[in-house]
Amino acid sequence: MIIMKQEATKEEIANVVKEIKKYGLKADVSRGEFRTVIGLIGDESRIDFSHFATLPGVKEAMMVESPYKLISKEYVKRFDEEAEQRQITVGNVTIGGDDLVIIAGPCTIENKSQLFQIAEAVKKAGAHILRGGIFKPRSSVHSFQGLGANGREEAEEALSWLAEAGRRFEMPVVTEVRGEAQIDLVSRYADIMQVGARNMYNQDLLAGVARMGKPILFKRHFGAGIDEFLSFAEYMAAEGNKDIILCERGILPVGKGKNHTRYTFDLSAIPAIQHETYLPIIADPSHATGRRDLIFNMSCAAVAAGANGLMIETHHNPSEALVDAMQMITPDELAEVINACLEIKRLVAPKQKAKVTSG
Amino acid sequence: MIIMKQEATKEEIANVVKEIKKYGLKADVSRGEFRTVIGLIGDESRIDFSHFATLPGVKEAMMVESPYKLISKEYVKRFDEEAEQRQITVGNVTIGGDDLVIIAGPCTIENKSQLFQIAEAVKKAGAHILRGGIFKPRSSVHSFQGLGANGREEAEEALSWLAEAGRRFEMPVVTEVRGEAQIDLVSRYADIMQVGARNMYNQDLLAGVARMGKPILFKRHFGAGIDEFLSFAEYMAAEGNKDIILCERGILPVGKGKNHTRYTFDLSAIPAIQHETYLPIIADPSHATGRRDLIFNMSCAAVAAGANGLMIETHHNPSEALVDAMQMITPDELAEVINACLEIKRLVAPKQKAKVTSG
Amino acid sequence: MIIMKQEATKEEIANVVKEIKKYGLKADVSRGEFRTVIGLIGDESRIDFSHFATLPGVKEAMMVESPYKLISKEYVKRFDEEAEQRQITVGNVTIGGDDLVIIAGPCTIENKSQLFQIAEAVKKAGAHILRGGIFKPRSSVHSFQGLGANGREEAEEALSWLAEAGRRFEMPVVTEVRGEAQIDLVSRYADIMQVGARNMYNQDLLAGVARMGKPILFKRHFGAGIDEFLSFAEYMAAEGNKDIILCERGILPVGKGKNHTRYTFDLSAIPAIQHETYLPIIADPSHATGRRDLIFNMSCAAVAAGANGLMIETHHNPSEALVDAMQMITPDELAEVINACLEIKRLVAPKQKAKVTSG
Amino acid sequence: MIIMKQEATKEEIANVVKEIKKYGLKADVSRGEFRTVIGLIGDESRIDFSHFATLPGVKEAMMVESPYKLISKEYVKRFDEEAEQRQITVGNVTIGGDDLVIIAGPCTIENKSQLFQIAEAVKKAGAHILRGGIFKPRSSVHSFQGLGANGREEAEEALSWLAEAGRRFEMPVVTEVRGEAQIDLVSRYADIMQVGARNMYNQDLLAGVARMGKPILFKRHFGAGIDEFLSFAEYMAAEGNKDIILCERGILPVGKGKNHTRYTFDLSAIPAIQHETYLPIIADPSHATGRRDLIFNMSCAAVAAGANGLMIETHHNPSEALVDAMQMITPDELAEVINACLEIKRLVAPKQKAKVTSG
Repeated sequence: MIIMKQEATKEEIANVVKEIKKYGLKADVSRGEFRTVIGLIGDESRIDFSHFATLPGVKEAMMVESPYKLISKEYVKRFDEEAEQRQITVGNVTIGGDDLVIIAGPCTIENKSQLFQIAEAVKKAGAHILRGGIFKPRSSVHSFQGLGANGREEAEEALSWLAEAGRRFEMPVVTEVRGEAQIDLVSRYADIMQVGARNMYNQDLLAGVARMGKPILFKRHFGAGIDEFLSFAEYMAAEGNKDIILCERGILPVGKGKNHTRYTFDLSAIPAIQHETYLPIIADPSHATGRRDLIFNMSCAAVAAGANGLMIETHHNPSEALVDAMQMITPDELAEVINACLEIKRLVAPKQKAKVTSG
Repeated sequence: MIIMKQEATKEEIANVVKEIKKYGLKADVSRGEFRTVIGLIGDESRIDFSHFATLPGVKEAMMVESPYKLISKEYVKRFDEEAEQRQITVGNVTIGGDDLVIIAGPCTIENKSQLFQIAEAVKKAGAHILRGGIFKPRSSVHSFQGLGANGREEAEEALSWLAEAGRRFEMPVVTEVRGEAQIDLVSRYADIMQVGARNMYNQDLLAGVARMGKPILFKRHFGAGIDEFLSFAEYMAAEGNKDIILCERGILPVGKGKNHTRYTFDLSAIPAIQHETYLPIIADPSHATGRRDLIFNMSCAAVAAGANGLMIETHHNPSEALVDAMQMITPDELAEVINACLEIKRLVAPKQKAKVTSG
Repeated sequence: MIIMKQEATKEEIANVVKEIKKYGLKADVSRGEFRTVIGLIGDESRIDFSHFATLPGVKEAMMVESPYKLISKEYVKRFDEEAEQRQITVGNVTIGGDDLVIIAGPCTIENKSQLFQIAEAVKKAGAHILRGGIFKPRSSVHSFQGLGANGREEAEEALSWLAEAGRRFEMPVVTEVRGEAQIDLVSRYADIMQVGARNMYNQDLLAGVARMGKPILFKRHFGAGIDEFLSFAEYMAAEGNKDIILCERGILPVGKGKNHTRYTFDLSAIPAIQHETYLPIIADPSHATGRRDLIFNMSCAAVAAGANGLMIETHHNPSEALVDAMQMITPDELAEVINACLEIKRLVAPKQKAKVTSG
Repeated sequence: MIIMKQEATKEEIANVVKEIKKYGLKADVSRGEFRTVIGLIGDESRIDFSHFATLPGVKEAMMVESPYKLISKEYVKRFDEEAEQRQITVGNVTIGGDDLVIIAGPCTIENKSQLFQIAEAVKKAGAHILRGGIFKPRSSVHSFQGLGANGREEAEEALSWLAEAGRRFEMPVVTEVRGEAQIDLVSRYADIMQVGARNMYNQDLLAGVARMGKPILFKRHFGAGIDEFLSFAEYMAAEGNKDIILCERGILPVGKGKNHTRYTFDLSAIPAIQHETYLPIIADPSHATGRRDLIFNMSCAAVAAGANGLMIETHHNPSEALVDAMQMITPDELAEVINACLEIKRLVAPKQKAKVTSG
């Protein structure tokens, strides 16, 4: 929408209309007694609003429609009245359906026996999907980067363990793709391909991963607003892959002094995002809080906020984990978390459903 | 703690020790093979660490103890082993006890009949404490500032309505004190005196309110870290008033583009704060989200996170409210929220209690 | 401006118009082919936009005009074509004129001889206005709060020293008012009354200080956006006092890890603010950076950005200062800063002037 | 450094020492009267501090050394006393030397004639290095992504224009590599390879680009703290390429309401970063402010802050630019900026040099 200055001339208005047509959109000119406002009919996201703001006679140029479209609830409902919530099915698990989905496993795969031991334990605790990191994005180049850093062969071996553990314990598996060079390799073993928070803005990676056609677990960057997060999810949808599971994992904290949690867990983003898009969204309390002692409460809170699932780092012996020891819980604690969360899901689900059908 | 440079001389170390004594603390010198570290025995918060950082031979000077003390769990447990959670009783309500406490009412008192109508309805819905704003802190001087802005007489009349509604419907009442000049007046009518988020740093107001000896509802500023929030609560405790109910009401969002919630509801701050202090903490989903359609989920989430209570803006006819219409729910909706939250409280309370007793 | 949904009915539009009139404004209805947009004629800041957003048929309700008016360039130029830049004269100093204004002195007044020694030295170094803190807002209640904390008598004595030092060395003096109870006392001694960053939102203090009729030095809160900062300056202008000197002193940093400066010095806010308001704006590199070794460069940068003046903490012996030792420079260093800044002012001033007359 | 609890036992201390040795570091145990502190001798960045924080008896585990090493001033000075400032020479230009370096050109290459016209003009205005975008990282998948998006052939053609323009007008050229697949292609044409802000965390891209052996222009992410920024620069240094030109281009703004600049230009980060590393750092006022009318002042401010160079988007006809029209200046305006900045550089350089040799 282009808001003209009160003193804008007819020529200036005509010029703006001409410019809008250059972008292939139609102009909807509204002349008030005092001010003229020009709406844009067509795909607003093709417009460079900063260009319009510099044209003579223009007071303000701003986007009224949301910067994402293919994944927006409004858009998908034009084609399918029922499309309130996308359901993504992987093996025996459906994300976005009535059931809460639990993804669990170690932060990082250390060796085969560690992985199998944890996989068995989390299955027993009630998890549905197995996670395990192989290519780890770390803040320091000097930190342990996962087994994937030891070369393609060792990476493939670790991937094959993960796939094998998934088959053995009947859980689809998810692992992170850190760079474009790994897309092909990871897609051969993983059921769900994860794009991590630090890669949220990496559009070439997004497009490449999306083209594999597998479901994607897509994490929000800690500095990204909701619109940015969804705009980058749109990069994957634009490749024809809408099997995107969004994931809130914490944003930058505000204020000075010691941060008592690793990030700020932005739980109100969950229902806010569900209002905008039909994609399912899960929450990762482990990375968001970085604190083992907060996982129980914050998992319950995420489900109460409406999350379709949870991703929780689990280790049979947290204090021996090579990475993120402080945020890992045991399989026993996981079972407690799952039990409480299932009850909370039962409590909040009817109200959400009501909102969907009425609102 | 003062960390000396590796090359620090004996004289430089001696000088730091001398400086520490000037502040009335004792120095605990630890000589390692490579580096000397000097601990501070006494009240670290009396030290200006920036002063020590400029002394010769010093690498870094930092606070190891928390910047609040009187309200810290660690401190109060020295005197009372049981002091895991402070309980604050106002009339027939205890905040910090086993029961979830619900504060509800209009954002702003518009007239007597509006207030009584809402008070009756929220009581019926299950609320325990009645809120109603008289002195409203607004971002724009040109906005409606509450009835308190019409002079002392009208302010007092509105306060008397609030007190009367409280008596009639058997709920203690809470209202905000915006400036020092109102402390005396408000203390005569309110059972709980509220210090709003924008006044969190206003230490003269904090001290003045605390001296009234009544319970205080103390809201976190949207730009304040947890340590800052607790350090300013300490200003009230230092006046001898520890009946402080903390309140999380949203922090500044991150990222660019449209904010889909008014603020970011920092729910992981709730258990993190409960880890640091024994003061009770409640949550205000109305101001945090600014969205009526998110109140149900985010109230449930706050209770799941461990909140001792909720403060929810309620209006019998939200779209006619003069202030904050978008975030108000009806008494019927409030009843739904309360019912779900009570069940969630039952689910998470035993786990929290276990944590408390086990340590 | 109210943007209606495409499917909004005539009745819904009429209802919005009726609501606008209730607030005493006129509605400017613009009917496009696809969408109706309703402009507001009158003082937009009296509208509660959240109220309009809840009305049936409304897509979005937003403020188009800025939330401040009395201090906006646009507004003041309606009455006075020349009113590009307000000039505030205090004694022999004009802030907002052609000359760069330097405010210097100790963070905190410790005793009379310290103050006089520093006052003489900063005058010699080229400062124009003397600063000295008496009522210090500190993060911790246990820290030194300035001589003002020792009671009214000692506060008044320190204020009289400041006034005397100002007379002796021919510099107007500025000191902070921390609470409403001090307004009267401070106004008797100070030539300029400072409202600190932590009090930016304290509207009762702002109104009270403004009513004294003296120039005000008004600091931006570290969590405040530009519009908020100016909206609270408007609280003082609404009392009839437009002698407001704005001050940028650092905002909250982003990101994780050690902050290498105390705050983020938001220098691009300076020309951005000068674009919005005709009030002068100065910069405080001492509080913004918290680092003595950055004062030279960041003072130069602030002047290059267009600041009308600088406020710099100075101490004859920084490492003995009781408060903020790390950020204080010596009078000799101050002289170096001033000399470089005067040259930079000469370089950037003509360009700024050209912009003013042409743009 | 590991700070033990006051009540830590001998066994707990011994256990921490044992754990430290596992990581290949030595432990430096300092026993004070009250508390034991254990320093780490060796490369702290190999430690997972969260692991140590979970060990029994530990109060706090924290990094004392900076998380980057190869690029830190402290480290490089061990081998070369003179290594205060790295100088990077590309063709006829040295970044990090006595001269201010100006990078200019269009945001995006639109066609050959546009590029050549601008290249000639910026050379005449005083620029040293030519920029031009081919692979554009955009927030929306529906926006123009640069000529690089039209396939490898068209990308290569645009790259060849850039290289040709560089030769013709005797300026080294820089362009952004957006994804790993483009590294090889871009390295054949560009003299300096740019990694954009959104890719700052993309460690596989960083490593790949670094291995090309060419100088890298490395932009800070808008959500990254200084330590994070330098830690990711370390990823390139770890590949043996230290020809890294850092670039500050704006961070996320704080506060609510309209942002009057696109980002917050973090100028105090410039001298703060120069204190930590010997790598040169330049500033990009175009992306930081997003406002043509602020470029003059903010360029001057960046140089006053100590920047080694500037990157400024320039277009012969800004209002016709396809991308970022609002932030582009004309070549004539560029000449004005350069002239003022050269004078400011002359003013601040001696003081910086003095600091280097003395401090």
